[in-house]
Amino acid sequence: VIPPADLLAAFRAVRARTVALAAPLSPEDQQVQSMAEASPTKWHLAHSTWFFETFVLKPAESAHRPFHAGFDYLFNSYYEAVGPRHERARRGLLSRPSLEIVMAYRKNVDARVERLLEQGSLSAERLTTLELGLHHEQQHQELILTDAKHALGENPLLPAYLESRHEHAAPSRMEWTSAKEEIIEIGHDGRGFAFDNEAPRHRVVVPACEMASRLVTCAEYLEFMSEGGYSRPDAWLSDGWDEIRAEGRQAPLYWTLHDGAWSVFTLAGERLLDPHEPACHLSFFEADAYARWAGARLPTEQEWERAARELPIAGNFAEDARLHPTSPRESAGLTQMFGDCWEWTSSAYRPYPGYRPPAGALGEYNGKFMSGQMVLRGGSCLTPRSHVRATYRNYFPPGARWQCTALRLARDP
Amino acid sequence: VIPPADLLAAFRAVRARTVALAAPLSPEDQQVQSMAEASPTKWHLAHSTWFFETFVLKPAESAHRPFHAGFDYLFNSYYEAVGPRHERARRGLLSRPSLEIVMAYRKNVDARVERLLEQGSLSAERLTTLELGLHHEQQHQELILTDAKHALGENPLLPAYLESRHEHAAPSRMEWTSAKEEIIEIGHDGRGFAFDNEAPRHRVVVPACEMASRLVTCAEYLEFMSEGGYSRPDAWLSDGWDEIRAEGRQAPLYWTLHDGAWSVFTLAGERLLDPHEPACHLSFFEADAYARWAGARLPTEQEWERAARELPIAGNFAEDARLHPTSPRESAGLTQMFGDCWEWTSSAYRPYPGYRPPAGALGEYNGKFMSGQMVLRGGSCLTPRSHVRATYRNYFPPGARWQCTALRLARDP
Amino acid sequence: VIPPADLLAAFRAVRARTVALAAPLSPEDQQVQSMAEASPTKWHLAHSTWFFETFVLKPAESAHRPFHAGFDYLFNSYYEAVGPRHERARRGLLSRPSLEIVMAYRKNVDARVERLLEQGSLSAERLTTLELGLHHEQQHQELILTDAKHALGENPLLPAYLESRHEHAAPSRMEWTSAKEEIIEIGHDGRGFAFDNEAPRHRVVVPACEMASRLVTCAEYLEFMSEGGYSRPDAWLSDGWDEIRAEGRQAPLYWTLHDGAWSVFTLAGERLLDPHEPACHLSFFEADAYARWAGARLPTEQEWERAARELPIAGNFAEDARLHPTSPRESAGLTQMFGDCWEWTSSAYRPYPGYRPPAGALGEYNGKFMSGQMVLRGGSCLTPRSHVRATYRNYFPPGARWQCTALRLARDP
Amino acid sequence: VIPPADLLAAFRAVRARTVALAAPLSPEDQQVQSMAEASPTKWHLAHSTWFFETFVLKPAESAHRPFHAGFDYLFNSYYEAVGPRHERARRGLLSRPSLEIVMAYRKNVDARVERLLEQGSLSAERLTTLELGLHHEQQHQELILTDAKHALGENPLLPAYLESRHEHAAPSRMEWTSAKEEIIEIGHDGRGFAFDNEAPRHRVVVPACEMASRLVTCAEYLEFMSEGGYSRPDAWLSDGWDEIRAEGRQAPLYWTLHDGAWSVFTLAGERLLDPHEPACHLSFFEADAYARWAGARLPTEQEWERAARELPIAGNFAEDARLHPTSPRESAGLTQMFGDCWEWTSSAYRPYPGYRPPAGALGEYNGKFMSGQMVLRGGSCLTPRSHVRATYRNYFPPGARWQCTALRLARDP
Repeated sequence: VIPPADLLAAFRAVRARTVALAAPLSPEDQQVQSMAEASPTKWHLAHSTWFFETFVLKPAESAHRPFHAGFDYLFNSYYEAVGPRHERARRGLLSRPSLEIVMAYRKNVDARVERLLEQGSLSAERLTTLELGLHHEQQHQELILTDAKHALGENPLLPAYLESRHEHAAPSRMEWTSAKEEIIEIGHDGRGFAFDNEAPRHRVVVPACEMASRLVTCAEYLEFMSEGGYSRPDAWLSDGWDEIRAEGRQAPLYWTLHDGAWSVFTLAGERLLDPHEPACHLSFFEADAYARWAGARLPTEQEWERAARELPIAGNFAEDARLHPTSPRESAGLTQMFGDCWEWTSSAYRPYPGYRPPAGALGEYNGKFMSGQMVLRGGSCLTPRSHVRATYRNYFPPGARWQCTALRLARDP
Repeated sequence: VIPPADLLAAFRAVRARTVALAAPLSPEDQQVQSMAEASPTKWHLAHSTWFFETFVLKPAESAHRPFHAGFDYLFNSYYEAVGPRHERARRGLLSRPSLEIVMAYRKNVDARVERLLEQGSLSAERLTTLELGLHHEQQHQELILTDAKHALGENPLLPAYLESRHEHAAPSRMEWTSAKEEIIEIGHDGRGFAFDNEAPRHRVVVPACEMASRLVTCAEYLEFMSEGGYSRPDAWLSDGWDEIRAEGRQAPLYWTLHDGAWSVFTLAGERLLDPHEPACHLSFFEADAYARWAGARLPTEQEWERAARELPIAGNFAEDARLHPTSPRESAGLTQMFGDCWEWTSSAYRPYPGYRPPAGALGEYNGKFMSGQMVLRGGSCLTPRSHVRATYRNYFPPGARWQCTALRLARDP
Repeated sequence: VIPPADLLAAFRAVRARTVALAAPLSPEDQQVQSMAEASPTKWHLAHSTWFFETFVLKPAESAHRPFHAGFDYLFNSYYEAVGPRHERARRGLLSRPSLEIVMAYRKNVDARVERLLEQGSLSAERLTTLELGLHHEQQHQELILTDAKHALGENPLLPAYLESRHEHAAPSRMEWTSAKEEIIEIGHDGRGFAFDNEAPRHRVVVPACEMASRLVTCAEYLEFMSEGGYSRPDAWLSDGWDEIRAEGRQAPLYWTLHDGAWSVFTLAGERLLDPHEPACHLSFFEADAYARWAGARLPTEQEWERAARELPIAGNFAEDARLHPTSPRESAGLTQMFGDCWEWTSSAYRPYPGYRPPAGALGEYNGKFMSGQMVLRGGSCLTPRSHVRATYRNYFPPGARWQCTALRLARDP
Repeated sequence: VIPPADLLAAFRAVRARTVALAAPLSPEDQQVQSMAEASPTKWHLAHSTWFFETFVLKPAESAHRPFHAGFDYLFNSYYEAVGPRHERARRGLLSRPSLEIVMAYRKNVDARVERLLEQGSLSAERLTTLELGLHHEQQHQELILTDAKHALGENPLLPAYLESRHEHAAPSRMEWTSAKEEIIEIGHDGRGFAFDNEAPRHRVVVPACEMASRLVTCAEYLEFMSEGGYSRPDAWLSDGWDEIRAEGRQAPLYWTLHDGAWSVFTLAGERLLDPHEPACHLSFFEADAYARWAGARLPTEQEWERAARELPIAGNFAEDARLHPTSPRESAGLTQMFGDCWEWTSSAYRPYPGYRPPAGALGEYNGKFMSGQMVLRGGSCLTPRSHVRATYRNYFPPGARWQCTALRLARDP
């Protein structure tokens, strides 16, 4: 665990960062929920606060009184052990509490947490939970951006979250790096923070494989499209084929054809598609179909982790304030492994051998979602740099597209 | 048509009234859409403005420029002849334009309309449309209240729109008034404003019938409930029975049982049900079932109009600022015919003999909705007093409950 | 009531006719349910038998024992007062009882009913119910044909129910007949059988109107289609417009375009559309849209009944074994008023003034369906001739198309 | 590949077996489709024939003429490369072709296949496809039973497929067998037939684990139920919890509570639940929840295969004609690994490293379904004995329950 003083600094930084991310959005923007899977910004601000109140303050404060008796019901996301809660799809209907009150809630909880930290009166267990809460909040920082992007993108006026600083992405040759079959250890080694689902570290056979040096670009994905990618069933998993036909999908999310030219909606508004930036906002089904069409496949999460474990955690992250993927800055070896876009792997999200969720409500954090989802690795341009690591396992259903998700090719030697 | 000077005064009054009705709601409250059938307050503010811009300013201004090129798409409600439009169920996602911009839109259009009125440069046809626009805006005034009530009622915190001024409703005996079979004229006679669907005036045979002196009260409706009203299929139309089972309905909308006592959510928050106030927020199916259980029926719209045509338009209206139905103030004869609650009739909403909708887009105002709906009469405590008259035909689908809708019994002699 | 001896003959004839109608269908054909609104032939055979067993035998037999204890559950259509029942949409899953057993059920019930009739031991009330049962069974005779047509029409092989005897329909000029406003009596006068919903006879004002001499033909409907009928919202009621877009409708049911020529599926298989036969299998929305496009409207049920009441009940009925509408045989005056196709009226299906359903379960026969449906008049080529009369009120939801439904134009003078 | 003479004998045996399995069902029974996931018996009979016609006869016959031009459309299950096809959920509507014609189709194709086999004129590739066709047909033999069971079980009369020969299952103690972590080869070694998804054989690290000696019994599962299994979210994956609440599930499929005692519907009709027989017709979610509640987990497919690879393929199979699981016959070691019930593993159905589907339409057989499903192992009492092997990978979505599916516990040492 981090020393309390460092934790206090981290707490202040992370909490302030969340508020800064929400600042460009009006109270009305922060109210909107564009689909059941996304949440309003205001809800993210409140829920991440509720997390500290419920899991740190409530067990630690001697005379605990909740900020508001109704907030347990409103801002519990999915913790069955904590109690009943507001329906997820109806979060956008909560015009009350107002944003003003939610900000007061944040300040109140911040002050109480900081006081406990300054007093040194938090147990080791509480400090561990507090650290978890910071990583939890970083996840919601990314969701604030992806969910706001989705809400703005649903608006026919296509409003922007920030001013565009777009520079044209430079072309970069795709090369293949090879690895032999080997038996290695996968999973977190216990040094520093990790989520429960990254453990236990365990031995696996990773087969020989080759991995592409960078993410698939828009230009490459457009070639797939122009060769009938969305109308040839042989490229698709059956579920994916059903989905694109049921939804009438013809392109990645946020891509629109205007007079023969593809545009893309970004957090800085709509602009022409840049051919050398990564093709982003792909579902697993789209990533998988592209790879099959290209005569390749997606890497497994073990192959990805083997490739990533020696690399520095450097790349295009949220701190860079681009908030859009771009072309690789490095020129050799595996690039873009961290940042830019989450990379779909071919691995279903299932527990590692010997996995056990923590006891209590926090056991629901990751473990109960281990069905129907695929693993993604590496973080994105919307992820805080300090949040990600080589063993990090993100997961989404195979049809999800509103996250910043893309693909890197792999192939058998 | 009203003289232009009076129209100008009416325009200013109606437009100001709309703004006043929205004022107690925060920008976030005004953003929320709680179901597809309801619209955000902000959307009502913009749409009623768009109506004047489109149907008055656009044909009348020599150098017309729309306030915003995108507003035709965003704020057209259902006029196919005007062009494509934003999906109704997604109005709540429009965080932009902000409320501030919508208020600027109102001011801009108001100024332009007022200028034309002051210049006397509007044709008779435009003046007629302007008058229609005022009645249109009054309809949206009522919808602002019913839709906001629904949105606040969906919030577990049950916030209030205004402070409660509730006084206990006094009991009032229900009596029956009789009428003989006669041949009379029904429909608007052309004096003063009326909607197209109130014409042509035409002869009908109205059978002998008896009508109750007041609306059915909560106490009476509770008796129906306690005698198994919601679990005895013999009381219900088949579609109504299917609906209450599918939706699990056990009581009118906004009624909740807390520890054995019924509460009701009002625009002033939740409070105990008042037994002598009218049972409100009933669907047609509920009203019809109650009447059947009570050995009576609903009146036809012709029976209702015959009874109402000689009565003054007096009652509990929006101007009274109760915003909730109460017991009748008069002690004899037919009471509550106007105000308090819209009364479901047994008449399907269909055209009068010889009905023709106006030419052009405004022909879509009423005519195309003449299927699948039932007629309601008399206005409610949320209706502006000047908006209603004996020939006024309101209409909603038989399952709708979020309007202020109730029933008066009728029976064959 | 009919004398018992005549009732016996009628009973034998109607029951035999039902079996004859089912005969061309294999046990597998009789098993299929192509949509929730349609029922398998086998179910119709059993349900119409259950009707006699439940409403005649059960109260009349001294030592009544049901044929099978489970049949009340399986073959009760919608009588809540009788008890719980099998879900309507799942009737096609009942491979048991087999057709063989259902035929044995018919024989058993027939013998028991006939014995009671021969013994003269049925009360007047039971005889009345028995007569109702015969008219009920005739309704199911028509449904056997419409439902089998729908099931066969869903099969890509487009199998036929009978051999084609199609003769080309002759052209016939459409003329208008006029009637003045008058006050007349509408509804059944009590002579002979009628359903409860045809009473009470009552006075109405029927306005002046003109009615077309025959049904709208395919050639005329094709003109509507070629002038963009299905893509011009101004022709449609709002609900109808929504429905054709949601369902992707471009033509009446059973019409298919093959290489530029329209074919129609009939009970004798698919063939080229005959331009002079009536356009059939239209929803109310389609009929209403055609009429609006043609500058006319649908007649009210009162207008239709006024026009029909003096006419003989002659036309193209089920007994003629065409089982498809054709052109009128008469050359002057109002033709096709009976037979050929049910005619959509502009009247919503609601009770006549003073209507009361019978007491008990049979009160559910017609009364509880008086919402959300439109009245049709005149019978069709699938209706038994003896089943229909001028006061007969058929009813279906406005979107229904699988009945043999068409339109006759009316207009204001 | 099997020698042609043996293939001929196998072909005759397998084809005859399918017909024998269908024989107890009437033409009406064989017509019914109780849900989209299940198919009518008649469709299985036709589709398995179409498989040989399409993939063996069509490429092999010099003057190939299909038995019926429409059958490609009707009986293609999911091969996009073959062409368009009838909607899966509407197979039950195909009363034509009749069962008689489908049986004639079988005879015709059988004769043509046998002739080619007798002439020795099939290429090695065609012989391989023929062998695949036999294993394919065996899969449909099992589906005929599971789908007929579902259809009969939906019928309120609960008819039986065969006469009951039920003998009470004997109790059997559950013991744990241990295995150490080891690196082994998993997947098919190429000797004898296997499906493409069982290859390539590849090295994996299988962790140390313990496995239960037998399947979980009804008595054990009832204990889970009586301890609130279906109302405690901590036992369930999130998707599983959502599913049981949305569907109102309280017990395995086919279990019904009558007056406090649990009955089970079997292919021999309904009878009291036998406490010592395996708990069957569980979804993956139910199996997983039971295991979690029991402090254990499901085995991975690698753990299962390691345990099974040395065992004889013996057990309660379809040939034993029980068609219901029973208690283990052996008394020591791992029992019931083959037969009785398919065992849910904790492994998502994904490709083995280096997997490539075959070229052409048959590449769609297994590969395109590798998302959203879980692996099952070991075969069931409805599986032909010759069909299963230690490397066999069956797969179904985690919510599927109409297959004969159960669980064996595993745990970490």
